[in-house]
Order: sequence, then C-alpha cells, then structure tokens
Amino acid sequence: MLAANVYVTLRKSILDPQGTAVKNALQSIGYEEIQAVRIGKFIEISLDGISKEQAETRVREYCKKLLANEIMEDFRFEIVEK
Amino acid sequence: MLAANVYVTLRKSILDPQGTAVKNALQSIGYEEIQAVRIGKFIEISLDGISKEQAETRVREYCKKLLANEIMEDFRFEIVEK
Repeated sequence: MLAANVYVTLRKSILDPQGTAVKNALQSIGYEEIQAVRIGKFIEISLDGISKEQAETRVREYCKKLLANEIMEDFRFEIVEK
Repeated sequence: MLAANVYVTLRKSILDPQGTAVKNALQSIGYEEIQAVRIGKFIEISLDGISKEQAETRVREYCKKLLANEIMEDFRFEIVEK
C-alpha cells in the first residue's frame, strides 16, 4: 500500500495572519528567537491498487483539482510505501 | 539561520471529518484508489540566534505549550539549516 504525504503552503507573497498570530503568541511568552511562522496543511493520503508511478500522476491531479488553490498556495508531495 | 518544520497530526483514534470530506470528494470525481485521507498542520518556523541543539529543545516546548493539543494530536519536527 502507498501513502502520499502532501504539503500545501501559502505562497511567499501571501500574508499569513494565522502564522503571525502564532509568532506573536510565542514571542509574548518569551521565545524571542522566533523570526517568522507560516502555517500550511499536511495531508496524508492512503492509496491502494495503483503503482508508484501512477500515484505520482494522480496525487498531482488531486492537488490541482482539490487540495491546493494554486493562486494562493504551493504544493509538494512525496509517495512512500506504507 | 535555522528553520523548524513541525507536523501536527490528529491521533489515530480521533475522527477526522475534514479528511473524510476530502476523501469522499476525491472518490466522487472518480479517484477510487483513495483509502483514507487525514489532514494535519505543517508549520514552518524561522529561528535566529540559537544553536541547533537549543532549537530541538525550544521547538519541543512550542509544540507542547502552543502548537499541538496532545490530548488529540501528535507532533513531530525536524530542524534544518536555511
């Protein structure tokens, strides 16, 4: 069985208010080493009955059709044996 | 400069309705190879002025204090040079 680990992150040019809130919260409790926080999604998909090569193509399709909004977000993924 | 990549995922015993909705949506457009989808968070933190060893300790603290709810969530992280 295969698993796809998909990482969806906001593009660099897009503001991330959730990340900024977390950065400020951590700084306010004394963690001054924090320069920036960006929050994205980590999506684990279990796949069955397809090859690793097919999975590469399919997961790209999932990302483009449903998982990522490419206007605002970047995605990357890896296919691993499970 | 260092970066921490933090992955926060729901514990296996916790239902993930958002993941189930994504699974159903992908299956409904014909991707029948999908067995399960679990959605977590991917948090990128930029750190300055501390060593890699200090960063390991600090990032564990961030997770325990703020980034993860350990009753429902697991976390793991890696520290990388940026």
